[in-house]
Amino acid sequence: MTASSPAIPAALVQSARDLIAAANRVLIVTHIQPDGDAIGSLLGLGLVLRAAGKEAVLGCDDPAPENFRFLPGAGEITPEPEGEFDLIIAVDISDPRRMGAIGARLGRPPHILLDHHLTNQGFAAVNLLDAEAASTGELVTELLEPLGLPLPQPAATCLLAGMLTDTIGFRTSNTTPKTLHLAEKLMEAGAPLATLYKAVLNRRSFEAVRLWAEGLAHLNQDGSIVWASLSLKGRRASGYGGAGDADLIDILTTVRDAKVAIVFSERADRTVKVSWRSSPDINVAQLALSFGGGGHAPAAGAEIPGTLAEVEKKVILATKALVNGAAPST
Amino acid sequence: MTASSPAIPAALVQSARDLIAAANRVLIVTHIQPDGDAIGSLLGLGLVLRAAGKEAVLGCDDPAPENFRFLPGAGEITPEPEGEFDLIIAVDISDPRRMGAIGARLGRPPHILLDHHLTNQGFAAVNLLDAEAASTGELVTELLEPLGLPLPQPAATCLLAGMLTDTIGFRTSNTTPKTLHLAEKLMEAGAPLATLYKAVLNRRSFEAVRLWAEGLAHLNQDGSIVWASLSLKGRRASGYGGAGDADLIDILTTVRDAKVAIVFSERADRTVKVSWRSSPDINVAQLALSFGGGGHAPAAGAEIPGTLAEVEKKVILATKALVNGAAPST
Repeated sequence: MTASSPAIPAALVQSARDLIAAANRVLIVTHIQPDGDAIGSLLGLGLVLRAAGKEAVLGCDDPAPENFRFLPGAGEITPEPEGEFDLIIAVDISDPRRMGAIGARLGRPPHILLDHHLTNQGFAAVNLLDAEAASTGELVTELLEPLGLPLPQPAATCLLAGMLTDTIGFRTSNTTPKTLHLAEKLMEAGAPLATLYKAVLNRRSFEAVRLWAEGLAHLNQDGSIVWASLSLKGRRASGYGGAGDADLIDILTTVRDAKVAIVFSERADRTVKVSWRSSPDINVAQLALSFGGGGHAPAAGAEIPGTLAEVEKKVILATKALVNGAAPST
Repeated sequence: MTASSPAIPAALVQSARDLIAAANRVLIVTHIQPDGDAIGSLLGLGLVLRAAGKEAVLGCDDPAPENFRFLPGAGEITPEPEGEFDLIIAVDISDPRRMGAIGARLGRPPHILLDHHLTNQGFAAVNLLDAEAASTGELVTELLEPLGLPLPQPAATCLLAGMLTDTIGFRTSNTTPKTLHLAEKLMEAGAPLATLYKAVLNRRSFEAVRLWAEGLAHLNQDGSIVWASLSLKGRRASGYGGAGDADLIDILTTVRDAKVAIVFSERADRTVKVSWRSSPDINVAQLALSFGGGGHAPAAGAEIPGTLAEVEKKVILATKALVNGAAPST
């Protein structure tokens, strides 16, 4: 799709425009366990509607993740929107169940849905869906002018935060020329790119870095396979509260000539969580499946019984067989 | 400056356009020890000129760094350009001495200079300088149309590589709406953003990650100060060939609530190299100066005699005094 081709029929946009023009009190709702694009779209559209003279209530079952609480309006997000609404808009929600308790209490579908998830079937009266948008923030930005809505600076900031989250700073393969074009518009409206980049993408807890240190203390390479191992003891010593690897695997994937990156995480139940990432020519989903797990061709995982040493040994053997072109053997 | 204001007088651009139109055999030269923007601008402009029917020779005293050797034309860069040239264009060169041996042999200044460094005084016949461009790749891209030059896909790839290098993937504070606008044009000409991002910014040696592991094994925090220490033994064990910290300090600066990040690197001569990074409200240049070093307000360094433990102790004390608003004491 080029920057100018219309992904959404003009008649649908016109319907949404009419609904918004007629509304006074609007509920905007995003999905449970919101990420940066959910929060950015929710706040961005909310602040846009306020600038257009509407009352806008910001609904989500869960609060904004810590990295997004600095965004204007983040403190106003409520799990219990009160009163009557003459318009309900859902953003970044791929499936009606992801509206959570708010959705259940509404007792009716949203009037308008804005989303970019490929799997979205549409569950609102007016579905503004574009799977080629790299983020819902991008889609909202693109539709503001057709919807007859303004772009105040605080809204631009929120929308760019959403865009940065889903494209990991314009680095994902679904980032298009249009993405950059719309980001340019947000910057021109006053969104502070460098500040947002740091706040959204380049900030983590001290404990997360300590978890990396624990994992990198057991860093290995065998040909084009690079791996790190997190013992239960190391995880506890780090003080890291999350269940995952704090994106340690993303560091391993940056190693030059590494075709497969693996993180082994020891669990308290005598299993080991194994995560694989691979270059495009190698399908690790198949390998994960052979260990009772699953995933996508370039990113998969499995939970495998055994000690860290046992699981490491058999997984590295099987991964080597895959990389060398043989069938994986468990 | 907005996206439309002309940073460079039209008459200068017209002079350069005339010189290029009249030329047949062009030497393009970039600075010694080239970075990604130097290489990207050199190759990008070279491929542009070839698409315009010129013979273009690509000159640099040093070869492209490893991360940029995949770029089209990188293998053709020569430290000894041969034959006669009817036009010499220097790119990304802030000072004529940085033309190196090639510049010395030329025995004359370049006809045209394209650069974005603030300190550039101009040393060519026609100086196309714009310190508000975030990269020379950006400046070259912007000038192609005014110079009457085409934008073939391989050139777009090289120019975007330059842009990504100098803006670290559009995250530096000098990234403007215009930067994104010109990056959009390069993508539309076929530059593969996601592939370039990974190749240019997200690739490092296994030994570099092992150096991180060594440093992170000595990770500490005291209030808003976070630091890591690299012993000489750890550096040798990592096998890392570089002299620096492989950007370990960039990881420390991402720690939430860290106002100052420090890396201590033990040297063979019983000194310790200390690097500071700070948030905008703290000036570490002053601190580095008090230890006999120097630098900029947010990024400074010093080489301090003593053991790792001795230097760590006094530097942390002085840094705490600075962070707490007192004068630094050594």
